[in-house]
Amino acid sequence: MELAQDVELVLFGAAGDLSGRKLFPALLHLEACDLLEAQFNILALSREELTTEAFLQELKPKAQRYLDSTRWSEALWEKFAKRCRYVQMNFDQAADFDKLASTLRDSVTRIFYFATPPSLFKTICTNLGSAACLNADSRVVLEKPIGNDLASSRVVNETIDQYFTERQTYRIDHYLGKETVQNLLVLRFANRFINTQWDQSCIDHVQITVAETVGIEGRWSYYEQVGQLRDMVQNHLMQLLCLVAMEPPNAMTAEGIRDEKVKIVRALRCIDSSNVADHVVRGQYTNGFIGDRGLPGYCDEAGSESDSSDTETYVAIKAHIDNWRWAGVPFYLRTGKRLAEKVTEIVICYKSLPHNIFSHGENIPNRLVIRLQPNEGIEMQMVSKLHSLKDKMGLVRQNLNLDFLGSSGMDRIPDAYERLFLDAINGDQSLFVGREEIEESWRWCDSLIQAWEQQGMRVKSYPAGSMGPTRADLLIEKDGRSWHE
Amino acid sequence: MELAQDVELVLFGAAGDLSGRKLFPALLHLEACDLLEAQFNILALSREELTTEAFLQELKPKAQRYLDSTRWSEALWEKFAKRCRYVQMNFDQAADFDKLASTLRDSVTRIFYFATPPSLFKTICTNLGSAACLNADSRVVLEKPIGNDLASSRVVNETIDQYFTERQTYRIDHYLGKETVQNLLVLRFANRFINTQWDQSCIDHVQITVAETVGIEGRWSYYEQVGQLRDMVQNHLMQLLCLVAMEPPNAMTAEGIRDEKVKIVRALRCIDSSNVADHVVRGQYTNGFIGDRGLPGYCDEAGSESDSSDTETYVAIKAHIDNWRWAGVPFYLRTGKRLAEKVTEIVICYKSLPHNIFSHGENIPNRLVIRLQPNEGIEMQMVSKLHSLKDKMGLVRQNLNLDFLGSSGMDRIPDAYERLFLDAINGDQSLFVGREEIEESWRWCDSLIQAWEQQGMRVKSYPAGSMGPTRADLLIEKDGRSWHE
Repeated sequence: MELAQDVELVLFGAAGDLSGRKLFPALLHLEACDLLEAQFNILALSREELTTEAFLQELKPKAQRYLDSTRWSEALWEKFAKRCRYVQMNFDQAADFDKLASTLRDSVTRIFYFATPPSLFKTICTNLGSAACLNADSRVVLEKPIGNDLASSRVVNETIDQYFTERQTYRIDHYLGKETVQNLLVLRFANRFINTQWDQSCIDHVQITVAETVGIEGRWSYYEQVGQLRDMVQNHLMQLLCLVAMEPPNAMTAEGIRDEKVKIVRALRCIDSSNVADHVVRGQYTNGFIGDRGLPGYCDEAGSESDSSDTETYVAIKAHIDNWRWAGVPFYLRTGKRLAEKVTEIVICYKSLPHNIFSHGENIPNRLVIRLQPNEGIEMQMVSKLHSLKDKMGLVRQNLNLDFLGSSGMDRIPDAYERLFLDAINGDQSLFVGREEIEESWRWCDSLIQAWEQQGMRVKSYPAGSMGPTRADLLIEKDGRSWHE
Repeated sequence: MELAQDVELVLFGAAGDLSGRKLFPALLHLEACDLLEAQFNILALSREELTTEAFLQELKPKAQRYLDSTRWSEALWEKFAKRCRYVQMNFDQAADFDKLASTLRDSVTRIFYFATPPSLFKTICTNLGSAACLNADSRVVLEKPIGNDLASSRVVNETIDQYFTERQTYRIDHYLGKETVQNLLVLRFANRFINTQWDQSCIDHVQITVAETVGIEGRWSYYEQVGQLRDMVQNHLMQLLCLVAMEPPNAMTAEGIRDEKVKIVRALRCIDSSNVADHVVRGQYTNGFIGDRGLPGYCDEAGSESDSSDTETYVAIKAHIDNWRWAGVPFYLRTGKRLAEKVTEIVICYKSLPHNIFSHGENIPNRLVIRLQPNEGIEMQMVSKLHSLKDKMGLVRQNLNLDFLGSSGMDRIPDAYERLFLDAINGDQSLFVGREEIEESWRWCDSLIQAWEQQGMRVKSYPAGSMGPTRADLLIEKDGRSWHE
């Protein structure tokens, strides 16, 4: 790990939603934890005509709102504000980058954070290059989406590649910054007890669920072109699947982890016209209720431009990994919008015992539940004796919490962006996504999309507030299994 | 399981310490839980000249003292007292048994509970037989010790055998009645996650500790002839070892479990003159302190008849089980009196991971701790991520409680005698000890004792209030391991 002692963060899109809601609060938390070096400074770039003072005045209430209230203090804000300088510029004006160049400090690590629409990436890169803003210690941090298919993602990556090496490029999937995702790695690789049972001989199947209660949040015309597979599966679900399924890396380095993740994406069995009907379910929400709140259907959302659409707001996939470890173990993935509850979890379902010697109890298989939302944590479902005189060998399912917030002495779980900022500052890429993973993931998704288009697979409707189309239940139930509730 | 609807309990030694402290409180708890059938009655037998009223009057305060205070009520006592009838008799007077015979109810299951010194077993059996007190539904319940070597235990068993079949004989080892011991069986045989890792490929070694803070409690002249190996290892530690090590039985029947336990005792590698010095440490306590309470050494205890003694009050053994499951996995046993703390626990120590990819953390192996005393419960020691921004992949050991008292809805863990009484009433022998196990266990212990006598292995002294002789630490540390603290 290259520990950068002197770092300048150059934040494109500093006045945007992501910056106010996530990036500045994360930086403030790092400040509160004394994790920012004395020399660390921030150039906040945006289009608006503002002084630094005015920018900070606008930022302050937003940052305060998203910061843990127990952390906030005027002294903290004052200390942090001193690091910030606002620079007004248009990202498509080359001349403005000369101004930026003159502002940049010499001989420091420069982290260029693109909190902008991806359509600006190329322009920003070109202008940074032309104005000689880049030095040998430059790094770039990108947010998704990186393309919307293999071809377009290659264009983005190649553009970046002209100015930044892979070693300088930090692609964020904020799921990877979550404590529980890192804890999954510790659980797998620091516990022999877990490690030796992580394969087809012990595990029956795996479920990955990313259920959202939100709809498309005013982005109808964008979302209509994208759909849930591109929006969620290609990146987040694929990353979770890789971390669950990858071979143990030889070291916890970015290269070690990325190499193993790519091998998993490459081992995913291709879903094509011949098998898409048995392996994929697409859904789209109609009007319905979450609690007693009535909600419009997808085509009635604000901004809708059509009475009918075939864009999926839900997708369930039965995936297979064709390697030694996972042969015969299906990975059931599902994600959707306007579902009954907001939950992100990975469920490892162990095989049943071959023989049941407890006459009173059903055979209850062990499960390991890795929950990212709500209430981040890891639970092992085991079977224990019911303490009962009457029922001598009565069995009871017990959920063991493997991840106590309290046990660590910390009063909160750090947000993903805190971890990721700190790693970008420290030059640790292990929780960022490599180019190969992204492109291999697009290759697999492209094939899948092509297959459902060729087969004319239409979306199945599901009411807002349900857990998706009934066809998705069939996808798993025809295998004698059911979704984890 | 033969559910006995109509049972008469005939309790020999009803005025003794065990009856007042354990047996009657257990029966009262069963009453409080509505687990005694309406017809169930108790004949309380003892030597003293007492009426039933006088006996109950003496019993009441003792029973109340040992009962959970929340359970006690006058109504409960009244209900229970109605079941009891006191019968004065001398157990060595045949004539008194004719009186007993005329008192016994017809056509009921008779449970003869021998809460007496073992020296009376034969006389009682003979008198019961002569007076025709036994019917086809008779059962006998025995307490340890059953002999003090193979030969004498055979004499006891053969005596009993003349009057009761093995199916009618209930030998108590109260450790087997503990909820946590039964939960160990559930843990092993109802969780694939545990079950598949229960062998030499995953487990490095096993430790079984029965540490007492008490001394020999005024029993010097008895104890001097017996020592800790006969007093504790031959029965309690051997039973725990069997339950940990046995193959999964095909069914939770007495036969199924006993067959598997006997196979373990038979597979124990013989400790003889050639290896006793490397596998056994004997100790005897000298004066010392527990807390700030000064305590005498063994030879200074009240009742001591000698200034020097070679009787062990502590023994540590490294045992090997020569079978497929446990080849190469040592079982370290230790038990002693006047140790620093009262603790009974089994610790399953898993192997370390072959490779450590977390640079910050030592390689912490998983452990499963089954604790019988204090605070009955089962804990899994796992490694989790330290929630910390500064220490990215810091590891922390976590103790997971696999056995929540609260989760069962019960407000207390039943005492072993409650379970065992109920099982004896219901004809379930699965938690009682079979004759073969006892005799095979004596055979192994006899060989061990003979070996240390042949080798002239003297006791090593240890101060009261320590954890045993330093030589016992060496026993395990020379293998690169250490006692679980």
